[in-house]
Order: sequence, then C-alpha cells, then structure tokens
Amino acid sequence: MGVALVGAGPGDPDLLTVRAARLVGDADVIVYDALVDGRVLELARPQAELIDVGKRPGRGVPQELISTLLAQLGQQGKRVVRLKGGDPFVFGRGGEEALALAAAGVPCEVVPGLSSVLAAPAAAGVPVTHRGVAASFTVVTGHRAHGGDEPDWAALARVGGTLVVLMGVARRGHIADELMAGGLAPSTPVAVSMAATTGEDRVVRCRLDELAVADVTSPAVIVIGAVAALDLHLSAHPLVALSR
Amino acid sequence: MGVALVGAGPGDPDLLTVRAARLVGDADVIVYDALVDGRVLELARPQAELIDVGKRPGRGVPQELISTLLAQLGQQGKRVVRLKGGDPFVFGRGGEEALALAAAGVPCEVVPGLSSVLAAPAAAGVPVTHRGVAASFTVVTGHRAHGGDEPDWAALARVGGTLVVLMGVARRGHIADELMAGGLAPSTPVAVSMAATTGEDRVVRCRLDELAVADVTSPAVIVIGAVAALDLHLSAHPLVALSR
Repeated sequence: MGVALVGAGPGDPDLLTVRAARLVGDADVIVYDALVDGRVLELARPQAELIDVGKRPGRGVPQELISTLLAQLGQQGKRVVRLKGGDPFVFGRGGEEALALAAAGVPCEVVPGLSSVLAAPAAAGVPVTHRGVAASFTVVTGHRAHGGDEPDWAALARVGGTLVVLMGVARRGHIADELMAGGLAPSTPVAVSMAATTGEDRVVRCRLDELAVADVTSPAVIVIGAVAALDLHLSAHPLVALSR
Repeated sequence: MGVALVGAGPGDPDLLTVRAARLVGDADVIVYDALVDGRVLELARPQAELIDVGKRPGRGVPQELISTLLAQLGQQGKRVVRLKGGDPFVFGRGGEEALALAAAGVPCEVVPGLSSVLAAPAAAGVPVTHRGVAASFTVVTGHRAHGGDEPDWAALARVGGTLVVLMGVARRGHIADELMAGGLAPSTPVAVSMAATTGEDRVVRCRLDELAVADVTSPAVIVIGAVAALDLHLSAHPLVALSR
C-alpha cells in the first residue's frame, strides 16, 4: 500500500528513469498533470485507470482535492502512481503531496525525474555550468503565483552565474528590465529552449535587451548568462544507434 | 559513428534514464568517471571495453587526453558511451568534451542524467522548492578549483532561496561563515545528504552555525535554507512493489 510520486521528465519517454517507466507500466491508477507527455501515458497497461488532474490557467483540480484523492487511492491498496512533469520537487508541489500523504498515514515513495530546468538547456546545446564561464546556476520561476514574493532580481544579477527561468515567457520583458537595472549587461546572452524533447523543440537565442520582443512561446525555459552563447553542436536526434 | 555523452545519475541503476540504460547495455566502449556507480557498469555487455578515466585527488587523466581519446574512439565507428556521474552538464565538464568532439568533426549526442543536486536532496526527503517556503534555488560548488573565483556568498545570502552546495564538505566552515556574514541567520536549517541512492545513504540535519563541526563526509550535497527543516517522511526504500 502506498503512493509513488514519480517524475515524468521533460517529455520524451526514453528520458523517464528505468524505475519510473516500470512503475507507470505496472500501475493500477495513474494520477497525472497537464505537463505529462501523452507518450509517457501510453506506457500504462490498457486496464490502468488514468486520472487527469492537470492544472491549467483558469481551471483544474484544487491541490487539496488532489492530495485527498491520492490518500484515498493509496488506502485502497492499489498500485498508485502520481505522475508529474519533470521532477516532483522542482516547482512540482510534490512536497505538499508527500506531507499530505504522511498526515493521512499513507506511505510515499519519491522517484525523481529529469527536470526541464536542466533537460531543456541541454536539449538546446547549452550547459548550465561550464569551466571558466559559469560555476553556479540559479533556478527561479517567473510566474508570481507560485512562490509569492517577487525574486530579488538585483541580488540574482549580482550572483553572476547562470540564471534559469521557468514559466517566464509572459513576464520576460519585466524580468529583463529588472536584471538590467540590477547590473546585468544588455548584451548578456539569452537562450530560450521551448518544448524541449517533445518533438516540437525550438530554440531562440538573443541578447537580454532583445528578450522582451523575441519570438518565444510557452512552455519554455529561459537561460540567461554567458553559457547561453555556447553552442555545443549537439545532434538534434538520437545519434548512437541501438542494436536492438 | 559518434559519441553519446551520457549522465549516469546519482548511483542507483534504476535511476538511469531508459535511453542511458539501453546505451550502456549496447556499447562497444564505455569511458567512465570516478563518480559512476559500479552497479551501472554491470549493465554493460561482457565484451564491452571499460576505460576508467576517473579524476581523483592528485591523479587521474587530464581533460585534454580524455577529449582526444573520445574523438579517436568516435572516429573508429564503435558504439562509444562517455559515462559521467549525475548529469554531464552540471559540473560535469560535458560541455568541454562536446566542444572538443565538434572540433574533431565527431557527432555527439547528449543524454541528460539525474543530477545529484536534485536527487540527493530528494533522497533526504527535502524538496528544493516548496510553496510558501522557497521559490528559487541556487547550485554552487564549494570546490575552488572547478570554477575559479569564489562565489559571491553575500549575494547568495541575499537571494534568499534554497542554496545547494556540491563538493563543499572540506570548506563547509568557511562557507557557513561567509553566508552568516552575508546575512543568513545562524539558525538557518541545513540538511546534508551523503552518498544518496548508493545504498550507503546518510543524512545529517543541523543549523548553519553547527555545519562546521557536523559529522559529514564526502560525497555530500549540502542544502541550506528553510526547506532543509522539512521532513517529508518518505519511504527510504522502493515501496510500490512491481508485479514483474
């Protein structure tokens, strides 16, 4: 009895962890988010019950109801997988669900997933750290609702490493202005990795002072800093053939 | 022809990605680092050639030689997997190897892996973000040699989100002092996740002003900030049984 809180990774089912793929393929019930790729859900057994609790702008299932649902399912002795896009603990509210399950006396296992904060820059050929270029990176959400207060953009500008912004497309002009006011050069390189590993990947590169008018769409991960000027010339598609 | 630059994740082979597990199991040659778990290498075919280029204190193969070796192997038409602990682009110097391969005209595919910067806190039951507690996180290395300049600890203290420090055990007293001088409270919660997912996991929790004398050993990921006081009561072992 219990619930597995599982990261579904950025999109491509081959980027699930081995354990996540097994759990999805073995589940009686899968409770999933809007960000979970449809190809991942196709790994479920035909008789598995799939429950969409995706939160989308203006609608969706309240967090409290999701937690209650998970506790009830867990208590029924079914194999329950709570599937979240990316990693459950990176802006995924997995911590809240784990606490709610603990409060209900339902055991909870976490299986981390590849977060888009790292997978999306990688897919764009941008390393978040690079020797002599960036020795740190900071991940923030550009979406005010998630964390409450506005980040201290001036302090972030002063830290100087790579800045990775999730859910920042709508407010990108504001973010760029605040970072430039905090001391980042207008010429600071920016790379925007959109829909990474979904098969509809797109990358836009620009300067920080061009970000406001850059042609970008959600979902996107915005990378700001010197590493964004690197282009590792990676193969866009799986390159090393498998023999089976 | 080409080289796959593959993240081996934090240790547990079940936390490899599906594609990484397939590539390791199919490789003709695997060039691996000191941080790669031995259980991951056991997935290789018996006839695969395993080359240890692990950099350890005071010895190891120079980075330039590793890049040259990868280019040569890639040009021989073998299935070459360059296997790195965690994620190739998070303090993994994967960017340098990708650039060297591009310069040599050898195609390169990157398969991201679970970085210990996220997997180690998760294994300790600590979410790096949590609604109302932390809406950002910064990852730095405590090891001076990697990135050159000392991080701006005062700016990091001012950013205020979760701080994740890799390779910081030896200098943890200095780091704590700098953060407190920068304004972090001495009572700031700290969680140290050691050898996460290797089967020898250990977690120590303390206050920032106790970190210098805390009983911690490498390899460790140090999490500093309010989230470190959370305990999600996760199951320490795989919980949801698989039917096969």
